[in-house]
Amino acid sequence: MNAPQAPEALSRPVPPALIDALAARFGPQLSTAQAVREQHGRDESPFDVPPPAAVVFCASTEDVADAVRLAAAHGVPVIAFGAGSSLEGQLLAVQGGISLDLSRMNRILDVAASDMTATVQAGVTRLQLNDELRHSGLFFPIDPGADATLGGMTATRASGTNAVRYGTMRDNVLALTVVFADGKVVRTGTRAPKSSAGYDLTRLLVGSEGTLGIVTEVTVRLYPQPEAVAAAVCSFPGVAQAVDCTIAVIQAGIPIARCELMDANAVRAVNAHDRLGLPEQPLLLMEFHGSAASVREQAESVQAIATEHGGSDFDWADTPEERTRLWKARHHAFLSALQTRPGCRAVTTDTCVPISRLADSINATVAEADAAGLPYFVVGHVGDGNFHVGYLIDPARPEERDLAEQLNAKLVRRALALGGTCTGEHGIGLHKQDFLREEIGDDAIAVMRAVKRALDPANILNPGKIFAG
Amino acid sequence: MNAPQAPEALSRPVPPALIDALAARFGPQLSTAQAVREQHGRDESPFDVPPPAAVVFCASTEDVADAVRLAAAHGVPVIAFGAGSSLEGQLLAVQGGISLDLSRMNRILDVAASDMTATVQAGVTRLQLNDELRHSGLFFPIDPGADATLGGMTATRASGTNAVRYGTMRDNVLALTVVFADGKVVRTGTRAPKSSAGYDLTRLLVGSEGTLGIVTEVTVRLYPQPEAVAAAVCSFPGVAQAVDCTIAVIQAGIPIARCELMDANAVRAVNAHDRLGLPEQPLLLMEFHGSAASVREQAESVQAIATEHGGSDFDWADTPEERTRLWKARHHAFLSALQTRPGCRAVTTDTCVPISRLADSINATVAEADAAGLPYFVVGHVGDGNFHVGYLIDPARPEERDLAEQLNAKLVRRALALGGTCTGEHGIGLHKQDFLREEIGDDAIAVMRAVKRALDPANILNPGKIFAG
Repeated sequence: MNAPQAPEALSRPVPPALIDALAARFGPQLSTAQAVREQHGRDESPFDVPPPAAVVFCASTEDVADAVRLAAAHGVPVIAFGAGSSLEGQLLAVQGGISLDLSRMNRILDVAASDMTATVQAGVTRLQLNDELRHSGLFFPIDPGADATLGGMTATRASGTNAVRYGTMRDNVLALTVVFADGKVVRTGTRAPKSSAGYDLTRLLVGSEGTLGIVTEVTVRLYPQPEAVAAAVCSFPGVAQAVDCTIAVIQAGIPIARCELMDANAVRAVNAHDRLGLPEQPLLLMEFHGSAASVREQAESVQAIATEHGGSDFDWADTPEERTRLWKARHHAFLSALQTRPGCRAVTTDTCVPISRLADSINATVAEADAAGLPYFVVGHVGDGNFHVGYLIDPARPEERDLAEQLNAKLVRRALALGGTCTGEHGIGLHKQDFLREEIGDDAIAVMRAVKRALDPANILNPGKIFAG
Repeated sequence: MNAPQAPEALSRPVPPALIDALAARFGPQLSTAQAVREQHGRDESPFDVPPPAAVVFCASTEDVADAVRLAAAHGVPVIAFGAGSSLEGQLLAVQGGISLDLSRMNRILDVAASDMTATVQAGVTRLQLNDELRHSGLFFPIDPGADATLGGMTATRASGTNAVRYGTMRDNVLALTVVFADGKVVRTGTRAPKSSAGYDLTRLLVGSEGTLGIVTEVTVRLYPQPEAVAAAVCSFPGVAQAVDCTIAVIQAGIPIARCELMDANAVRAVNAHDRLGLPEQPLLLMEFHGSAASVREQAESVQAIATEHGGSDFDWADTPEERTRLWKARHHAFLSALQTRPGCRAVTTDTCVPISRLADSINATVAEADAAGLPYFVVGHVGDGNFHVGYLIDPARPEERDLAEQLNAKLVRRALALGGTCTGEHGIGLHKQDFLREEIGDDAIAVMRAVKRALDPANILNPGKIFAG
């Protein structure tokens, strides 16, 4: 898929003087090799690569600040890069510029176990953090599937499978260290559990996709590892019944920790990829956290509700190994599905609706996808009202891309009409800019643009993302 | 106490032409009566009243937008007014201008029980909302004590006694309707449980104290009324033991719903005011929410921890009436304490620290207050690391005010050194502007100012609050 172009349809030139200055400051931390550049101009979106002109491998906040200052002096865009797992074209150098790779900023700076907080450099990944926390009795719950960096997860306001219980990055970031467009370094908050100290700069940065500042350190909340964990798989005759079951569980106020939908196509894909042998029909993959008594109570309530909705084969994963195997399979769903159609790419949707509208939203979507005849799969954080359809398109056939985008547009407009949003967790990037405008309106976009202009008057921070220009 | 003056030390004039235009548009909704103006220039802070020049009683978002447009045309400040319960001088017309009273915007627009959301006009109070929800099986948990309006609670990022379990306004506002400085009306979000759709305008407005926009409608999360509720009072030999008990409860991960400290002075005050007969020593007032089994389990764990910390007289309030009586007394603590020294006013502190530092913070504070000899009381949402000291000062004796402010300054600087914030929930207003600067630094203030200038270039929205100018 071709990336949308910025209105000027032109990359801004990266003058040799900037490359020289970066080389002088960063030495071997700077790369202009074609392969390195291309790797940093690509994410998991279906867009073609517009690579940056150079990549700086930053090792510290000071590195980031210096690189931003040098780029600012030449009016050249800077795009932060973590794990490269964003889905909406957030990383693509559509106006040229340089990429700042933060993956070497991978130090865990502080774990305050007694306060249940951790402060990490932006390049730390969620699996790395949880590995470090392994023996602390604590864990970091946000789980977008990919082993994303905490900086990247902050930038896209990521969430994932645990959000129904533990919230999203919005709820779990306490404070950030941010490099602004003038190279100034600001700490946006403290480790206090709550604060009313002025504007919420932390939340303004969370979800800003690198367009307002570059996050270099993240302080997050941690949670006690639950005393007991139980996971179960339950199959349903159709997607509609699985969704209705989810709605009933949420409305009953059961504090389920994870409630994930996979349609029959997704189950078939993970069965093939991970040799799971799950019944190839829609299923819910659920997890319960709490004391032993509370987990038992939750599980019994959910099992009763599932049975009422036609659920069967309630299958418990009792050991940590079985649970890990199931969740790995769930996390592989995207890659597994891609392998069902060799050479394909996925156009992914991300709507989120109020829970009472989830059945309307998802049933109509499945009917449209079936009627269209394009291969697809559905996975969803349905406890949040959020689900993803992946339309598997042949990149050589533009008519397939067009069809997938038409289906996506129908799905988004339906979600908006139902009081929902075009993106629950992937962000806007390049792909959803028109939908953002439909969702929130020109006046709200004007407010966002005013904030952007105020904090980045030369438009050097990831320009052309969230809104064009 | 004299209110701090804006740098220009001058109210901006309110031209008669504006009053005429407001009278033409609003008729009897406009008041310029002295008593009405004074009432709208006063809050619960210890500052003297600088009244607005006029008050517009707005009945709709359109009223607010029209009033803002008229004021903007004359470059005149506008200050939104809800219940008048703010504590840091947020309402005071330090640069003159007009007050927009939103208390008539008291309609509950929508309760979506199946989605657990409600949308209300900004003038709806928290008690009114919960009264409306009484038979719905749901409730709105944020409880700052005063029967504040939801608009005001949004503006100060309020929290209160339930925040340890349910979070603050930051966590529980889903979307807002906002009138910006140019009179444009923007809806900042949807009813979807989560979203990554562009900048988080909702969170930017929450806590902005009326300086970026005027909130006219609020969509909030609701929660299922817990199946079981239990409340208990437990006395401790000293404040230190009560605090250590709280820290242990939080670190054990017990999902306690409320955990409130009252020192012996506060207990004496509420005993006198509400005839409670509580032991006049430090106590924790706690509440547990959940299934019957879960509440029992939580209460047993906490009772064991309390006993280890010298807690005694664990006294259960089993009936709703007993619980209501206890919480009413807690909510009266501020007024009850004021009555222990006739004619006094309270200088109130609001620090919040990481939970592991709470004992250090509070013990030193109590020692300093005792040494200073000024009457005081302590109440605290200690499960959040947040507590309030009220120094009871004679407004006729400036040396008492100075002493209280010196004690407050010591307390705040200690909180900052411990990784905390100068304000957990009351906001900055006029009173904490220097502390905000110490807490977050000039560069962060510059970012906040840039946002303010971008959204309110003529500085008409509650000017002089959060930062001077």
